[in-house]
Amino acid sequence: MGFFSKDIKNMDDLFVHTLRDIYYAERQILSALPDMLEKTNDPQLKQAFQSHLVETRNQVGRLEKVFRLHEHEPSGVDCPAIDGIIEEADDVAGEVDDSSVLDAALIAAAQAVEHYEITRYGSLIAWAKQLGRTDCAELLQQNLEEEKAADKKLTAIAESRVNRRAA
Amino acid sequence: MGFFSKDIKNMDDLFVHTLRDIYYAERQILSALPDMLEKTNDPQLKQAFQSHLVETRNQVGRLEKVFRLHEHEPSGVDCPAIDGIIEEADDVAGEVDDSSVLDAALIAAAQAVEHYEITRYGSLIAWAKQLGRTDCAELLQQNLEEEKAADKKLTAIAESRVNRRAA
Repeated sequence: MGFFSKDIKNMDDLFVHTLRDIYYAERQILSALPDMLEKTNDPQLKQAFQSHLVETRNQVGRLEKVFRLHEHEPSGVDCPAIDGIIEEADDVAGEVDDSSVLDAALIAAAQAVEHYEITRYGSLIAWAKQLGRTDCAELLQQNLEEEKAADKKLTAIAESRVNRRAA
Repeated sequence: MGFFSKDIKNMDDLFVHTLRDIYYAERQILSALPDMLEKTNDPQLKQAFQSHLVETRNQVGRLEKVFRLHEHEPSGVDCPAIDGIIEEADDVAGEVDDSSVLDAALIAAAQAVEHYEITRYGSLIAWAKQLGRTDCAELLQQNLEEEKAADKKLTAIAESRVNRRAA
């Protein structure tokens, strides 16, 4: 699938390759989020997906800046991890009847996406610093902070849903 | 692929289905870890993979306890997310020549696995509590803590040795 190809000889190659992996992933998420947004009737969750859609567009823009700072044209590589995670998210959108259970499952699916991004950005930031690219690291750090905040917001929504229903 | 099937009608169904997802995932990881362990020449990383292999066996045992406490037979469902993440890990094992770069990539791949588990255990623990299964939540919490510790250990190894050598 091309996550690691034969031409990865040094840390710079690994950095660029993983940058392509997350660039592909973010754009897949851009395609998937509107469907998830449409499936929920919870206004708080709908709003969270909506604002993360806007954030994701900005994140794609920051990744394109990172590519250019590092003197590469922005491009993606297939990433079966994010494809698999989104496949699971798609399934929940289509397969669960009860709207409250669907929301719980949508939140879990979205958090799996966030955690994939958190781990990839963590590696990319470490490698950017190692390569002396603090300029790239700073942009990637902004994406990481947004992903962490999105994950926390989803946890808060999950907890408040449970509390609301229990009340 | 069966992550969410038509029979998910309530939170209990969602809990059991996701339990089957992580049970499948942990057993896939049990199969994948020995290969990763074999590919690294870094003694610290080798030891980390070795000790996580032992932990993963215990985690599978805890999941089987959770199934039985909840009066279900332990069984898995296919999970394309973990399959995709492991596919990426396999690729790095076979495709990168330089041993230091390989170690950096192996760590990143292993951290993607940890983060997938962290997010799934987070959801499962919240749902177990909601269902009044604090006994199940406690066992799942033990797995979560081990995954978080494994992730931190990998970050420490990356920072202290592997990345520096690879630069």
